[in-house]
Amino acid sequence: MITVYHLTRSRSERIVWLLEELAIDYRIEVFRREANNAAPAEMKAIHAIGKAPIIRDGDVVLAESGAIVEYIVRRHGAGRLAPGPEEAGFARYAYWLHFAEGSLMSLLLIALVLSRVPEAKASAVTARIDARVKAMLEFVDGELGAGPWIAGAEFTAADVMMAFPFTTMRRFLDYDIAPYANVRAWLARIAARPAYERAMARAGPDAA
Amino acid sequence: MITVYHLTRSRSERIVWLLEELAIDYRIEVFRREANNAAPAEMKAIHAIGKAPIIRDGDVVLAESGAIVEYIVRRHGAGRLAPGPEEAGFARYAYWLHFAEGSLMSLLLIALVLSRVPEAKASAVTARIDARVKAMLEFVDGELGAGPWIAGAEFTAADVMMAFPFTTMRRFLDYDIAPYANVRAWLARIAARPAYERAMARAGPDAA
Repeated sequence: MITVYHLTRSRSERIVWLLEELAIDYRIEVFRREANNAAPAEMKAIHAIGKAPIIRDGDVVLAESGAIVEYIVRRHGAGRLAPGPEEAGFARYAYWLHFAEGSLMSLLLIALVLSRVPEAKASAVTARIDARVKAMLEFVDGELGAGPWIAGAEFTAADVMMAFPFTTMRRFLDYDIAPYANVRAWLARIAARPAYERAMARAGPDAA
Repeated sequence: MITVYHLTRSRSERIVWLLEELAIDYRIEVFRREANNAAPAEMKAIHAIGKAPIIRDGDVVLAESGAIVEYIVRRHGAGRLAPGPEEAGFARYAYWLHFAEGSLMSLLLIALVLSRVPEAKASAVTARIDARVKAMLEFVDGELGAGPWIAGAEFTAADVMMAFPFTTMRRFLDYDIAPYANVRAWLARIAARPAYERAMARAGPDAA
């Protein structure tokens, strides 16, 4: 059985959600953030980087959201939630799967770190990053216009990767999604999925 | 034929290198960075985000390093340079493929942006990020001890993803790799690959 080492209010909610979507058995070990929001040191005993998500599947201990999602869908998904390389939707799926961390989260993390440097508030660099965040959110909103899901007609693991920056991440960096109607409609579709509801009850930002 | 829209001194060198490793025909369109290092506005006409790398393959226009690498190896690689999902090395390959941007580059970009905010120089946040960079480089160095390649015994597309932060990225954020003997030995193995040499001649940071 797959073990999810879940850190509260973190990307590991994605993995719980994906497993719920695929109806794959799993168990959760919960780690609580420390007062300063850091992951507790005990996570380093599981994986050297010590950050969520981490899973164990037999002998395999694996970290990194995108890698875990690909591992689960390709190894245990039986073709569900991810188009194969020969399918027409493969490029679009791969794009959003990687964009979620490679472009979107990486930019949001820059904005988050800058927001914690009081001296940077008036910097031209901060203004430039804020403008890039806005442009990127507009881009995602435009792409979701084709919808209903991020990679097209079908819900995929790319939606699982893409939701976090718009949901739980906003507990840390609260940017406004009101202007993005397509994003809001997509988040409403996600919230209505029974697997998402079950996952958030167990591993969402407000889970006990 | 695949077209690589190559931005000078950028991640798109990875794609040229991968295509050379696979001996796949391609053509390059070169875009030069502007005086402030930004990508030129014309790249936005090819893909809305306007950042390298971007490729065209028939009707498919695709951005994002990790997505392009996966697309090329899975669609055109005939099983080379990437273990399939049922192979033992798949998890490790997927890990480094995603780690390159999702963890390593994303942290280096935070350090790069902070380095451009003079007011942040003495900030505790900057010191914390510097410590995280050091810890992450030590982690990669340790993992390369098993080597000779990042995902194990075989050279894979994960090496193609992982080299850039240690090579061309250092033209922008010059951190010291002298303490990391395994990283240096791995970079020497990479530099000795004929495909890498050909790729850098066409699309490396010192290409004309």
